Amino acid sequence: MAEHTVKAFDDEIGRLRGLIAEMGGLAEVAIADAITALIEDDSELAQKVVDNDPKLDKLEAEVDRLAVRVIALRAPMANDLRDVIAALKISGIVERIGDYAKNIAKRVNEVESRTKIKPVTLVPAMAEIAKSMVHDILNAYAARDAGMAVEVIERDEKLDNLYNTLFRNLVSHMMENPATISSAAQLLFVGRNLERIGDHATNVAEMVYFAATGEYHSEGDRKEKGEADN
Amino acid sequence: MAEHTVKAFDDEIGRLRGLIAEMGGLAEVAIADAITALIEDDSELAQKVVDNDPKLDKLEAEVDRLAVRVIALRAPMANDLRDVIAALKISGIVERIGDYAKNIAKRVNEVESRTKIKPVTLVPAMAEIAKSMVHDILNAYAARDAGMAVEVIERDEKLDNLYNTLFRNLVSHMMENPATISSAAQLLFVGRNLERIGDHATNVAEMVYFAATGEYHSEGDRKEKGEADN
Repeated sequence: MAEHTVKAFDDEIGRLRGLIAEMGGLAEVAIADAITALIEDDSELAQKVVDNDPKLDKLEAEVDRLAVRVIALRAPMANDLRDVIAALKISGIVERIGDYAKNIAKRVNEVESRTKIKPVTLVPAMAEIAKSMVHDILNAYAARDAGMAVEVIERDEKLDNLYNTLFRNLVSHMMENPATISSAAQLLFVGRNLERIGDHATNVAEMVYFAATGEYHSEGDRKEKGEADN
Repeated sequence: MAEHTVKAFDDEIGRLRGLIAEMGGLAEVAIADAITALIEDDSELAQKVVDNDPKLDKLEAEVDRLAVRVIALRAPMANDLRDVIAALKISGIVERIGDYAKNIAKRVNEVESRTKIKPVTLVPAMAEIAKSMVHDILNAYAARDAGMAVEVIERDEKLDNLYNTLFRNLVSHMMENPATISSAAQLLFVGRNLERIGDHATNVAEMVYFAATGEYHSEGDRKEKGEADN
């Protein structure tokens, strides 16, 4: 590419990264607000989370449009093209993370008697980890930081363990308090949504790791790839 | 594009569509097998669903690779480029539909006493609708059939209603039979997974509708778009 084209391309990639960072910020706020609304029984805050979700959809559409334009006008090759495709994929994942937060917010009014359901205290702890995973993996993406990506992947295990504890404790609680089953079932879904946010952050982390090192992160994947190469 | 390039491009788009059709077929089988395994308590079949999932991941990676090559070599413009981007996005969605089927299969061993949980009979009915949505929307995608896309979008309401019924019935069942709460909670997740499959099929349907007509399907979206156009 000619020098001015390279400059334009770099500007546009920078803009794509900026839009994704903006999406990440909105997703983090959505997770935090949804959990606050859930814990404090704040319908207004829950509604705000639902109302804000289209912003993420619009930013994703903006990433799509810009990515398509970059591809069409600059015809990037190899690594540069992969960069643009990664932006397309990551924006889709962050948009879905926002959907999970919205799903949590939608449940706020379905949870009654939350103060009577003890395991609810595990939910903010899970949300904190999920939020930190989203935050750190988007920083790692911006900085192409493979080490941070590995850290995010490892943190997912902690989130999974908390989710399993939440599941067990909620089931015990339901058995002892049949009257709260419906509310407790909603909390199961909330836990599941947070666990899925962690999975999505891990997917991004694997992309970031691959982009930064050219290798697959997990042992299993690496073996599979080795076999495929033979 | 020169004539031979157009021919090559058409061949490659055809190949992308073929790969996505293949993914759709695998996803449908995964849904059907996961539900059969769940209902008939067939751990072996459940394991088969889990073991087959990497095939979908590999096909998605193949779509990615081919799409990137098409963009890099043919530098498609406007509609053609949008076609390739749509293939990238739809392959990602079908891969996730496979994940939901895998999640259902993974729960098979966690559900005890399924014959004692009456609402379980709603699950195959939900699966039938979810499977038909995946099937029909991929046909609609191949044929750019906006009418079929609308039909799939409308079918999602039926699936949502069934899910709400399942939820209510399972909660009642849990209250009356505390000993089955853990199994019934797993069925809640199964129902939720099927409902999410419907959501994903609806997302594809909206893309197909937009690609075929140049307009957004839902009333709300159309209004939003109208405002943005002013």
